[in-house]
Amino acid sequence: MSIQINTSIDVLGTPKIKSTLPFGPFVAPEEKVVIHVGPDVIDEAGNEQLLLPFEEAGPRETIYFDPPKTKCALVTCGGLCPGLNDVIRSIVMEAHHHYHVAATIGIRYGLQGFIPDYCHDIMELTPENVTAIHEFGGTILASSRGPQPPEEIVDALERMNINILFMIGGDGTMRAAKAINQKIRNRNLKIAVIGIPKTIDNDIHFVPKSFGFDSAVAKATEAIRCAHVEAQGAPYGIGIVKLMGRESGFIAAEATLALKDVNFVLIPEQSFELKGENGFLQALENRLISRKHAVIVVAEGAGQHLCNVSRKKDASGNPVLGDICDVLRTEIKKHFKKKGLPITLKYIDPSYIIRSIPANAHDRVYCGFLGQHAVHAGMAGKTNMVVTRLQDRYVYLPLNLVTQKRRKLNIQSMYWRSVLESTGQPQFLKQ
Amino acid sequence: MSIQINTSIDVLGTPKIKSTLPFGPFVAPEEKVVIHVGPDVIDEAGNEQLLLPFEEAGPRETIYFDPPKTKCALVTCGGLCPGLNDVIRSIVMEAHHHYHVAATIGIRYGLQGFIPDYCHDIMELTPENVTAIHEFGGTILASSRGPQPPEEIVDALERMNINILFMIGGDGTMRAAKAINQKIRNRNLKIAVIGIPKTIDNDIHFVPKSFGFDSAVAKATEAIRCAHVEAQGAPYGIGIVKLMGRESGFIAAEATLALKDVNFVLIPEQSFELKGENGFLQALENRLISRKHAVIVVAEGAGQHLCNVSRKKDASGNPVLGDICDVLRTEIKKHFKKKGLPITLKYIDPSYIIRSIPANAHDRVYCGFLGQHAVHAGMAGKTNMVVTRLQDRYVYLPLNLVTQKRRKLNIQSMYWRSVLESTGQPQFLKQ
Amino acid sequence: MSIQINTSIDVLGTPKIKSTLPFGPFVAPEEKVVIHVGPDVIDEAGNEQLLLPFEEAGPRETIYFDPPKTKCALVTCGGLCPGLNDVIRSIVMEAHHHYHVAATIGIRYGLQGFIPDYCHDIMELTPENVTAIHEFGGTILASSRGPQPPEEIVDALERMNINILFMIGGDGTMRAAKAINQKIRNRNLKIAVIGIPKTIDNDIHFVPKSFGFDSAVAKATEAIRCAHVEAQGAPYGIGIVKLMGRESGFIAAEATLALKDVNFVLIPEQSFELKGENGFLQALENRLISRKHAVIVVAEGAGQHLCNVSRKKDASGNPVLGDICDVLRTEIKKHFKKKGLPITLKYIDPSYIIRSIPANAHDRVYCGFLGQHAVHAGMAGKTNMVVTRLQDRYVYLPLNLVTQKRRKLNIQSMYWRSVLESTGQPQFLKQ
Amino acid sequence: MSIQINTSIDVLGTPKIKSTLPFGPFVAPEEKVVIHVGPDVIDEAGNEQLLLPFEEAGPRETIYFDPPKTKCALVTCGGLCPGLNDVIRSIVMEAHHHYHVAATIGIRYGLQGFIPDYCHDIMELTPENVTAIHEFGGTILASSRGPQPPEEIVDALERMNINILFMIGGDGTMRAAKAINQKIRNRNLKIAVIGIPKTIDNDIHFVPKSFGFDSAVAKATEAIRCAHVEAQGAPYGIGIVKLMGRESGFIAAEATLALKDVNFVLIPEQSFELKGENGFLQALENRLISRKHAVIVVAEGAGQHLCNVSRKKDASGNPVLGDICDVLRTEIKKHFKKKGLPITLKYIDPSYIIRSIPANAHDRVYCGFLGQHAVHAGMAGKTNMVVTRLQDRYVYLPLNLVTQKRRKLNIQSMYWRSVLESTGQPQFLKQ
Repeated sequence: MSIQINTSIDVLGTPKIKSTLPFGPFVAPEEKVVIHVGPDVIDEAGNEQLLLPFEEAGPRETIYFDPPKTKCALVTCGGLCPGLNDVIRSIVMEAHHHYHVAATIGIRYGLQGFIPDYCHDIMELTPENVTAIHEFGGTILASSRGPQPPEEIVDALERMNINILFMIGGDGTMRAAKAINQKIRNRNLKIAVIGIPKTIDNDIHFVPKSFGFDSAVAKATEAIRCAHVEAQGAPYGIGIVKLMGRESGFIAAEATLALKDVNFVLIPEQSFELKGENGFLQALENRLISRKHAVIVVAEGAGQHLCNVSRKKDASGNPVLGDICDVLRTEIKKHFKKKGLPITLKYIDPSYIIRSIPANAHDRVYCGFLGQHAVHAGMAGKTNMVVTRLQDRYVYLPLNLVTQKRRKLNIQSMYWRSVLESTGQPQFLKQ
Repeated sequence: MSIQINTSIDVLGTPKIKSTLPFGPFVAPEEKVVIHVGPDVIDEAGNEQLLLPFEEAGPRETIYFDPPKTKCALVTCGGLCPGLNDVIRSIVMEAHHHYHVAATIGIRYGLQGFIPDYCHDIMELTPENVTAIHEFGGTILASSRGPQPPEEIVDALERMNINILFMIGGDGTMRAAKAINQKIRNRNLKIAVIGIPKTIDNDIHFVPKSFGFDSAVAKATEAIRCAHVEAQGAPYGIGIVKLMGRESGFIAAEATLALKDVNFVLIPEQSFELKGENGFLQALENRLISRKHAVIVVAEGAGQHLCNVSRKKDASGNPVLGDICDVLRTEIKKHFKKKGLPITLKYIDPSYIIRSIPANAHDRVYCGFLGQHAVHAGMAGKTNMVVTRLQDRYVYLPLNLVTQKRRKLNIQSMYWRSVLESTGQPQFLKQ
Repeated sequence: MSIQINTSIDVLGTPKIKSTLPFGPFVAPEEKVVIHVGPDVIDEAGNEQLLLPFEEAGPRETIYFDPPKTKCALVTCGGLCPGLNDVIRSIVMEAHHHYHVAATIGIRYGLQGFIPDYCHDIMELTPENVTAIHEFGGTILASSRGPQPPEEIVDALERMNINILFMIGGDGTMRAAKAINQKIRNRNLKIAVIGIPKTIDNDIHFVPKSFGFDSAVAKATEAIRCAHVEAQGAPYGIGIVKLMGRESGFIAAEATLALKDVNFVLIPEQSFELKGENGFLQALENRLISRKHAVIVVAEGAGQHLCNVSRKKDASGNPVLGDICDVLRTEIKKHFKKKGLPITLKYIDPSYIIRSIPANAHDRVYCGFLGQHAVHAGMAGKTNMVVTRLQDRYVYLPLNLVTQKRRKLNIQSMYWRSVLESTGQPQFLKQ
Repeated sequence: MSIQINTSIDVLGTPKIKSTLPFGPFVAPEEKVVIHVGPDVIDEAGNEQLLLPFEEAGPRETIYFDPPKTKCALVTCGGLCPGLNDVIRSIVMEAHHHYHVAATIGIRYGLQGFIPDYCHDIMELTPENVTAIHEFGGTILASSRGPQPPEEIVDALERMNINILFMIGGDGTMRAAKAINQKIRNRNLKIAVIGIPKTIDNDIHFVPKSFGFDSAVAKATEAIRCAHVEAQGAPYGIGIVKLMGRESGFIAAEATLALKDVNFVLIPEQSFELKGENGFLQALENRLISRKHAVIVVAEGAGQHLCNVSRKKDASGNPVLGDICDVLRTEIKKHFKKKGLPITLKYIDPSYIIRSIPANAHDRVYCGFLGQHAVHAGMAGKTNMVVTRLQDRYVYLPLNLVTQKRRKLNIQSMYWRSVLESTGQPQFLKQ
């Protein structure tokens, strides 16, 4: 299979201004780092093991924008995710303390904040008012879901004299960033658009581990532990934990590895049947009879073929998922009622409890770098790109790469193999 | 209002055996401590401020049972609550290390464990196998809900040659303890029945603060904090947190005081209307318009008159509650749709995440004392009683006192006054 | 032994102004609550069990100060303690939101902040700038140790037109409060002085459990757990944890009860010898030989007769303690070197890690009430007093009561008995 | 500079036995993964960017040892580190549940456990007795420091009929593993020696992030936060936190990035002077005067040229370090006494509090993989090697590679650049 992957980054023009940063090291212009992009981490598609050159993130000695005349804007979109405030803080601190830009403007309530009709105020972001925000979950800018007209957003950027727009958000936001960048190009404006991908599902293409994922997994394990305690605490106890993961089971899988008490993990990438000899219900029955309790972790997008799926879309434009946990609870109760086994079923949906926590130390470091490298990119006049970490390196990627498709867990991988080993779940998941 | 309160404790016979405890102090036989039992803490009924004498908990120099011939049994019943393992551990350690009893038997899966039909094994409890259990939530004995025939339970006690039965459970368990004690008296057996009241709702009469309550409140505040972050993170964000409290709003009230971010707290003791000028919905609308977000804490038993209540009972014999949070969510959405205010509503139900955690340091100390004093009471031949803390003193109470009625939050109290002040919620809750 | 205890509270004058509080209940003027003040909690002295009437804390319907003309000041003194920010927040919120006072002024860096020579700014305290401070440890006002001239402090109060001074601090601060109150009386000023006792050692007379103590104990257990892990992790491992407690072993004792892994607890109230058959070293040797590891918790003021004590005083005027842990480490190493037992000794001093944490949920509720009741007292024109909780009641106490002497742990009590049982430590501590 | 790096792995013989693992994927024999080994992560030496082929970790379809006749041994050496129990658990679970080996023996108290003179028992490791050990810090096997004679260790392996020896430990342990492997080869035995590098300093060559490092950093940030609170809480407050890092400042640097409150970070790799215009003391003075408080993080091995260093070695054979924090405290006090600035200095040494905690979720996943891949390697007959993660890949490395030299933080790197930016510390650290 031949793949054409363009990893070069757009620029607004030739950098000519000496960086205000007091000391190096600096990244040479267009310095590349070669990364072995493998099947497990990046792509479920095939066996290709690509060595690709990526533009290395970091400060450039010569920059495009003149700091004292530069105004940045920052917006957070979509659902909450640990680390949003850390990224905001890092961008503000880097822009102010090290580049000494004129101002950084916070757009409130996601893309709504650009649209006059919503009447949301803007928020000036200074070192003083962001200094302690990393101690809190959520985003001080607040957020909203769903698209807004790119034309109106660029109008707003023009009115506010913004030079660099930092957009923190998911898949939809990255597509919005592309559209906004296109409008900017059409109008021949000098505005850089820098994306910082955010996804609690960890499903953005070319982003092996998105910020907040580590914190989310850690928190998810607490819910699983509770489910385990509840399951063990009652006769034929079953604990079900629903975790995030619309199309990808990364949180479910990683939390399963982090806590050794999960007996079944159901994810969107791995189809399964409920009934029959190799079905989930029979496997659950076997487990209950031999061990008297069971813990089930379910990614919200698992088993959609078993659900009555509407064709509606939510505010972010994603299809409304069928409620697999509702199906499971109904079918489990029905199954064991028929079998005469008096189960006790406890269901935990920790969604918002996970999304809204502050980032842990790991993610704080990560978010700090993402924010810094985003500013370095913007000041250097790069645009239409995102910053991410790839194999322990920070790199800049064209927006095109990350919006192509969703990242999925490769169920042929060594990683998923370990997850299955950890649960001991039987062959119904290995068809 | 004249009240007849008998605080004296039943005994199996005259203690004649020298205690094995290596050192004192010992409590003199029937030593009383006088406690000012006031309106806020104990009873919602009136203004009486009673000074009552209670039997002081603690070791007696002369005991009733001969330790090397004494066999204890221990059972945990009902829903999980932080601290169950701590109480189990404390009983086992005190009985073995200090009284050197012959054995302590753990009955598995609550009262079911006594009934041969269920085929549950028993579990010998030794210092070795309980030494680290306080690090884990739940109960190593597991639990179950609902009653079992007292006759069969006493049969089992006889078969196993049990001398002291420790029963850890809620309201229903304390009533079962009374019935079991009655059967024991009828058969003229020398078996002591000692209750340790457990209730995550904190609603047992004469038990101002039950074990696990402090841990539960602490954990509940985390959920509220998340609701607050989510509410602030979206346009017109509303965060609803459902907390335990079937007939009493103690957890909801205390968690509200512990975290300063709650704007409305709804509890069973305080009736309220949804609609109209003084209704909840109007108050919520006012809050949203002035502050753009709101956090609502709801005790599960609040607003039952607004729900479609079935007449069913659950396994523990408690009426199945109407789902007030379901009503609230529906009505809130309807209200703001009509008003054209585009709210974002996030709902958190942390129930099992709270019930299943290990006890915090505070509750560990408390549970340690409860277990020790339960053993002291049993060895001294006391029966038909519970151990509790009352105004910083550990005392023994007749089972009769705690099974009379549920404890409720006094909404005329200074305490509730502070809760209302903390939320700033308006007069609809002060009719 | 006959005791004269005056529990009545001084007032600045007759309250004549209707309270601004929107709703009751209110405490009737000089309403008393009768409390059984027993030997364990309050006093180590004897067996007296006193029933004393205390003035109940809470809002009065008629107050002394006219809110819109009232200016409060607030100062935090001495070492850090969890909950300081909670008390500050509660005072500011109550004074502003419910009494609508003109202003609340924060004095920075303890009593230094009153003295012009130090050039510390003051800090206006508004609901906006205190709203999230309870999430952080320490005190936003900062603190300092040691006395300052009362005359100059009263000069400053006069210059700033302060009507109510809230002083949060320890023993020394409460004595300063008395002196300041005396100067105010001498000058015939109408300034109320309200103390909120703060002591991480929990050693203030008539204050059974000071704010922050619960948080401190919880945090201390973490250090002990680490010492336990380290002790178990090496051959003949010994873990020593030094905890706060200059003259009283409350934290050491309570943390020992909260974590079941302590084998020896040494406190100031209980003398002990190092050497000889009944000495500590022999007991430690026995433990190491039978169990291969040992955990020792030491209150910093324990075993002073074994130390080379200087006669110096620290900035707060307290004697500089001898370093008992230094003595222990030296003597333990010497002893086991002589005995040829190759021990591994790990020493943990978590002092600042405990003092500087935010309050836990328990202490947040407590601090909230202390702050509210302090404001109620001040607005009612009470003075020369402190607010505290006594047996689950909030009461006002004359400053005289709390400054008489330090509270100590009664080593004849049932409480200390349980501590000894928990450790299993032998008779060298029960002479 | 030309580098000769041999990355191929020794084997005991040709694998001929079909793996017992129920399902794949399997790693093809000697499958290589090419990794871009860069200057920042691996080596401080120069600018070389190497692309090296490493043997990929994972199960092989054909293995060397016949599982039912295979006996494993496991030993943990050196100081505690979060995750030890996780690695033990993972090895035991993988060996038993998936390979069904005959037995896994735990050697107690490190290498001492092999030597009969110490009289330490061994410990049979079964799934039952390791199932919950990951909830606890430390190592259930206990540990010890220092070498033991390789001859005697191999004698013990022979006597116990061990086929695979898993050694978890630091630099010294990896050198012991090499020596043991050599003796085994000399005796022509079929015993595999598999190392799992453990170092809380994160300073093992070719191991970019050792297990437990993430947990240690997270815990270290708590101590720094406390130092910050204490520093802010007093006039001219200085908080000093000593962190692990004998020759490398990784924990200090990463914790600085994770918490944004550090003003100075001192590490072994970056020399600095105390005195003079560009010295540390002058920089600290400037900070105190402008901001009134300062937080200093010190890696224990920093500034050795300023210390009075003995020439002693500790039990592990490492030189005893000079106490830089003692020097700093003395010099800081002297400096500000001379300048007349009344500082308040608080010193925190959280060493054991960090080392002895359980692993966090991140490290649990990591340790799980390390243990699994160690077993895969041993069963495949590989030896004289370690397992590690390199750029998100698990690989096998020859012991030679990791024992060559210590890994150090590259102070010319972008990473250290960000640390300096984060602190704002001046040029004295950028000579």
